[in-house]
Amino acid sequence: MNQDLQKERAAASFNPELLTHVLDGSPENTRRRREIENLILKDPDFQHEDLNFLSRSQRYEVAVRKSATMVEKMRKFNIADPAEIMWFKKLHLVNFVEPVGLNYSMFIPTLLNQGTTAQQEKWLLSSKGLEIIGTYAQTEMGHGTHLRGLETTATYDPETQEFILNSPTVTSIKWWPGGLGKTSNHAIVLAQLITQGKCYGLHAFIVPIREFGTHKPLPGITVGDIGPKFGYDEMDNGYLKMDNYRIPRENMLMKHAQVKPDGTYVKPLSNKLTYGTMVFIRSFLVGESARCLSKACTIAIRYSAVRHQSEITPGEPEPQILDYQTQQYKLFPLLATAYAFQFVGAYMKETYHRINEDISQGDLSELPELHALAAGLKAFTSWTTNTGIEACRMACGGHGYSHCSGLPNIYVNFTPTCTFEGENTVMMLQTARFLMKSYDQVHSGKLVCGMVSYLNDLPSQHIQPQQVAVWPTVVDINSPDSLTEAYKLRAARLVEIAAKNLQTEVIHRKSKEVAWNLTSVDLVQASEAHCHYVAVKLFSEKLLQIQEKSIQAVLRNLCLLYSLYGISRNAGDFLQGSIMTESQITQVNERIKELLTVIRPDAVALVDAFDFQDVTLGSVLGRYDGNVYENLFEWAKKSPLNKTEVHESYHKHLKSLQSKL
Amino acid sequence: MNQDLQKERAAASFNPELLTHVLDGSPENTRRRREIENLILKDPDFQHEDLNFLSRSQRYEVAVRKSATMVEKMRKFNIADPAEIMWFKKLHLVNFVEPVGLNYSMFIPTLLNQGTTAQQEKWLLSSKGLEIIGTYAQTEMGHGTHLRGLETTATYDPETQEFILNSPTVTSIKWWPGGLGKTSNHAIVLAQLITQGKCYGLHAFIVPIREFGTHKPLPGITVGDIGPKFGYDEMDNGYLKMDNYRIPRENMLMKHAQVKPDGTYVKPLSNKLTYGTMVFIRSFLVGESARCLSKACTIAIRYSAVRHQSEITPGEPEPQILDYQTQQYKLFPLLATAYAFQFVGAYMKETYHRINEDISQGDLSELPELHALAAGLKAFTSWTTNTGIEACRMACGGHGYSHCSGLPNIYVNFTPTCTFEGENTVMMLQTARFLMKSYDQVHSGKLVCGMVSYLNDLPSQHIQPQQVAVWPTVVDINSPDSLTEAYKLRAARLVEIAAKNLQTEVIHRKSKEVAWNLTSVDLVQASEAHCHYVAVKLFSEKLLQIQEKSIQAVLRNLCLLYSLYGISRNAGDFLQGSIMTESQITQVNERIKELLTVIRPDAVALVDAFDFQDVTLGSVLGRYDGNVYENLFEWAKKSPLNKTEVHESYHKHLKSLQSKL
Repeated sequence: MNQDLQKERAAASFNPELLTHVLDGSPENTRRRREIENLILKDPDFQHEDLNFLSRSQRYEVAVRKSATMVEKMRKFNIADPAEIMWFKKLHLVNFVEPVGLNYSMFIPTLLNQGTTAQQEKWLLSSKGLEIIGTYAQTEMGHGTHLRGLETTATYDPETQEFILNSPTVTSIKWWPGGLGKTSNHAIVLAQLITQGKCYGLHAFIVPIREFGTHKPLPGITVGDIGPKFGYDEMDNGYLKMDNYRIPRENMLMKHAQVKPDGTYVKPLSNKLTYGTMVFIRSFLVGESARCLSKACTIAIRYSAVRHQSEITPGEPEPQILDYQTQQYKLFPLLATAYAFQFVGAYMKETYHRINEDISQGDLSELPELHALAAGLKAFTSWTTNTGIEACRMACGGHGYSHCSGLPNIYVNFTPTCTFEGENTVMMLQTARFLMKSYDQVHSGKLVCGMVSYLNDLPSQHIQPQQVAVWPTVVDINSPDSLTEAYKLRAARLVEIAAKNLQTEVIHRKSKEVAWNLTSVDLVQASEAHCHYVAVKLFSEKLLQIQEKSIQAVLRNLCLLYSLYGISRNAGDFLQGSIMTESQITQVNERIKELLTVIRPDAVALVDAFDFQDVTLGSVLGRYDGNVYENLFEWAKKSPLNKTEVHESYHKHLKSLQSKL
Repeated sequence: MNQDLQKERAAASFNPELLTHVLDGSPENTRRRREIENLILKDPDFQHEDLNFLSRSQRYEVAVRKSATMVEKMRKFNIADPAEIMWFKKLHLVNFVEPVGLNYSMFIPTLLNQGTTAQQEKWLLSSKGLEIIGTYAQTEMGHGTHLRGLETTATYDPETQEFILNSPTVTSIKWWPGGLGKTSNHAIVLAQLITQGKCYGLHAFIVPIREFGTHKPLPGITVGDIGPKFGYDEMDNGYLKMDNYRIPRENMLMKHAQVKPDGTYVKPLSNKLTYGTMVFIRSFLVGESARCLSKACTIAIRYSAVRHQSEITPGEPEPQILDYQTQQYKLFPLLATAYAFQFVGAYMKETYHRINEDISQGDLSELPELHALAAGLKAFTSWTTNTGIEACRMACGGHGYSHCSGLPNIYVNFTPTCTFEGENTVMMLQTARFLMKSYDQVHSGKLVCGMVSYLNDLPSQHIQPQQVAVWPTVVDINSPDSLTEAYKLRAARLVEIAAKNLQTEVIHRKSKEVAWNLTSVDLVQASEAHCHYVAVKLFSEKLLQIQEKSIQAVLRNLCLLYSLYGISRNAGDFLQGSIMTESQITQVNERIKELLTVIRPDAVALVDAFDFQDVTLGSVLGRYDGNVYENLFEWAKKSPLNKTEVHESYHKHLKSLQSKL
C-alpha cells in the first residue's frame, strides 16, 4: 500500500464502509453487490489483454467474446433481477460496450411491449438463445431528434400480404444502431407505414437482415459498420439500407396498431404508455452520470494524494498536489457534485418505480412531471458530468492524457450520454414546456404540486421580470435548507422571466412556435435552474435520513460545498433577483475556501466509499493501493509500438529519407 | 455545391476574401499561404489512407513516412522562412503529429542556443540530415512542472573525462518526450550535474541512445514507447532509463556553463535569455488555440447550415438547425471568440518579434510583462478553446461523435495544449505573480505601464475589496470601447481582491508561501479577468484598423457579442463591483439574442473567411461543398470492420455461444 494513501485513510473522520451502505441503500445491498462483482473479478474467463493495446477489430472480437461469456455466466449464476444484472454488467463492462447488448435491452423488450402473443411465441425463444440476434433501428442518417421526419417506408402489398421496405434516399439510411454493423441478424425497424395509399406514421417491423448460417446480408439489404467513433470502439454501430425488401405481414408488431390481410389499418387505443420506457432509460442515465463522475473523482483524488510536485514552502519536501488550493477547488466541488448526483439518481429510481406502480393501476397523474424531471435531470447531470470528467482528467497533469489513467476511456464512453436518448438541449426544452404549463396553470388560478410547487408562491405575475422574486429572505449560508430556499427563488425567478419573455414574443410575433424559438435560451436557463434546485433540495433532504453522526457531518459539508459552489459560479442569478447581497456572495466565496480545507482530510475516504473495486477502474492512477509509478512502467512496456516489427518498417523509411537528404 | 451553403453564401453582407486578408495580415500573405498549401494539396506523395481507419502502429508508420516526405519537400520547394514552414506544416499535419518533429523544433534549436561552436560543428549537420534524429528529454515520470525536482543525475568522472548518467529511481525515468519511443537515436537530456562532490543543478547533455545502423538501444539504455494516449496516436512519446551510462565530457552543452577536464565547474553569466523560448512557444500556442477553435467552428457552422431537423413552425419543411436560437447561442459566441483569439494571437506574435528585437539590443525591460502575458493568454485561450471544441462537436448531434466529423481528432490533439509548455493553472499563477508585483509597485507609489496600467487608476487601496471599483461609469452596451472599460474595471477589482486577500492571509499566517497557496483561487480568477480584458481590448482596437465598411460592420457585431457574452456568463463580477446594474445585465441578455439574429445571415461567410481548404479539415461535415450525406456513406463503407475477416472470427464466437445456450 502506498504510504500517502495509508496516511490519508488513517486520518479520515469516518468509516467509509458506512457511507458505502448509504450509497448502496443498505449493508445487505453492499454485500450482495460485492458478491456478484467477485464472480467476475475472480473468473479467468473474463481476463483479457488491455483493450487499449488492441486495434478496433481486435477490440470488437474481445467484446463479442465477453458478451457471449456474460450471457452464459448470468444464466449459470442465476442473475435475473434487473438491479443485479446491472451490477454484474457494470463491473464487466468497464470502459466497454457489448455488441449483443441491444438484443437484450431493446429488441426483446420491444417485442414484449409491442408484439402480440403469437409474435412473442415466434421470436422470443430464439432471441433469448441468441439464434436471433436483434437490434433496434430507429435513427436515420438525416433524422434523429425528429421522429416524424423518418423516411424509411413500409408499404403494404395485399396481393402477397407482405410489407415492402424501402430506404428511398441517402438520408433515410438507418444509422447508428448498436450491433447492427456486424453482429445482428435481425432488426426491429421503425418505418412509415403505408397501406391502401395512405401513410399512418411510424410503426415497428421485425426485419431479418442476415442469413442464418452464413451471416451474409440478405438480398435487398445493405448493411455495415458506420466507421470509427470517439469511443465505443468495441461497438459495431451500423447502417442499414433496404431496397424493395419484402417481409411477411406478420412481421409488423401488432399488439397495438394492426394491418389486416386486406390492408385495412386498425388504430391503436393509446400511445401514452410508450412514455414509460423513455422515462426509465433517462432515469437510469442520471444514475450513470453519478457513477461516471464518481469514478473520475476516485481516480483524480487518489492520484492527487499520491503525486508530489513543486513546493508550497521552500526547502520542504514536495507536497501532495491535493494540498494545493487550486487542486482542491478543481476536485472537491466535483466530488460534492458526484454525491449530489448519487442521491438524485437514487431518487429518480425510487420515483420511477413508485409511479410505475401507479401507472399499472391506471393512475397516470404523476407521469407528466416525472417525464419532465427525467428529461431535465438527464441533461443537467450528463452535461455537468461530461465537463467534470475532463476536469478530473486535466487535474492529473500529463498522466491524465495517457490511457493508463483510465480517464480518456471514461470520457469518450460517457460523452454520448449528452446526445443519445434525447439530445440535452431538446431535453431541457421539454422540461421547460412543463414549467411553462405549470406557470400558466398557476396564472389561471390552479395550484400545481410536486417539485414545481414553488410556482404557487410567486408573489405576482404582473410586475417586471427584473423585479420578480423580491420575497423577503435572509439566506443562511451554513444552512442547507436555507440554501435550498435560495435555489428555489432563483428557479422561480428564471421560470418567470422565461414565461414573460415568451409572452412578450407572442404579443410581437403572433406565432407561438416562433416565440418559443426566440425565447429558447431563456427557457433552457429556467430548466437548468429548476434542475439545480431539485439536486440541492434532494441532497439537503438526504441529510435528514442519515443517523450516523460522522457520516452526516461529512455529507453536510459536501452538501454545503455543492450548494455554495453553484451560487458562486452563478452569482449573477442570485444577485439579480436580490436573493443574496454582494457581501453575502463574498462570504460564500470565503466559506467555499474554508470548506476545501475542512473536506481535505476526508477526501480519499470519500472516494473510497464509492467502492469501485481496483480492476473496475481500468486505471493505474486510481488503483486502491496507489502504487502508481511501478505499475505505469510495467503497463507502458506492453505498448504494441514496443514490438520489434515496428523497428523494421521504421528503418525502411529512415533509410529512404537519409538517402535523399 | 450544397444548395443551403450556396444560399448562405449568396446572402452574406460582405466578401469573405477581404476578411481572409485581414486574418492573414495582407492579400499578399493570403496568396503566398495558398501557394504553399497547394504544393501539398496537389502532391500525390502526401495522399494516404484515412488515419482513422488504421491501427496505432500503422498510423505511426504513415507518420514517419509523411515526416520524411515533408523534410524532403521543404528543401525541394525552398521553404525556409519560419512563417512559411508553419503554413506548410499546418496543412500537412492536419490531425497529425510528426515523430521527427522534435529534432527540428527542440533538438537543433537547443544545440544552437546552448552548444559551443565546436559542438554545433560536431552535431548540427548530421541532425539536419537526419543521420542523428534527436529529441529533448526533460519531463520525468514523477516530475513535470517542478524542474528543480528532476532526479536524473550526470556525475562527472575526471579519471575518464566522462559523465555518468543515471536514472536512480522509477520516478526519475524520462517520460513523454515526443519521438523518443521509437524514432530518435539521440536525446538532449536534462540532468542534475554533479562534479567534485557537489550538485550544480540542471544542465543539458547530448546522449546517444540507439546504435547507428541497427537502431538498437545502446547498452545501459532502456527506451520505449509509453503506450496509447488520448490522441497523438502517431507520436511515439517515449521513456528513457539510464544505468551508469557514460558519455564524453564534450557532450555537455557548454556555451553557458562549463565543466573543465579536471571537474571544475564554471558558472553561466546569465539565465534570463532562456525565457525567450518559453515566451515564443506560448505565444505560438495562443495562435494555435485560435486556429483550432476556428476550425471547429467552421465544421459546426457549415454542418448546422446543411442539417435540417424538427420544426419551428408546424407544417413547414424542417428548418436548418442554424435557425434555432439555442444552436446560435452555442455557436456564435464561440465564433466571436475564435475571431477574438485570432487577433490576440496576431498581437502576441507581433509583440514577441518587437520585444525580441529589443532583447537582441540588450533591452529586457518589457520581457517580464510579455512573459506574464504569454503565460496567462496561453492558459486563457487554450482552456476556452478546449471546451469550445467540445461544444462545437456536441452541437453536431450524433454525427459529431463519428470521426467523420473531424471534431474528435481536433479535440484530442488540441487538449494537451492545456497541460504542456506550462500547465494552465501554473501559468495563471505566473501571471498573477506579475499582477501582484504590479499592484505592489503602484501601492508603493510607482506607476506601471503596458496592459496593467489600469492599476494606476485604482482609486484607493485602503477600502474593503467589495467596495472597490466604484468609479463612476455608465456602460454603453453598444460601444466596444465602453465594454472594454467595463472589463478593465472588473480586472482591477479582482486583482485588488486577490491582493487584499493575500495580505490578510500574510497577516494571519506569517508565511508568504502558505498565504499564496491559500489565495490561489482568487489569484487565478484575477489572472483570468486580466486576460479576458486583454482579449476584449485587442478585439475592439482591431476594429479601428479596418477600413472596409462591410468588414468593420461584421467584426463589430462579433466584438460586441464576444464582450457581452462574457458579461452575461460572469454577471456576478460585473454586478458586484457596481460596474453594471441589474437592468443593464437584463439589457445585455436581450442584446445578445438580437446579435444572434444579426450575425445569422453572415455565419457561413464568417467561417469561410478562415479559409481552411477542404481537405485540411479531415471532416465530412465541414467540407466547403457541404455534400454531407453521400460522402458520409462512402466514408463509412471503408471502415475496417467491414472487411470480411471480421465476419469469420465473429462466427466462431457466435457458434460457441449458441451451443451453450
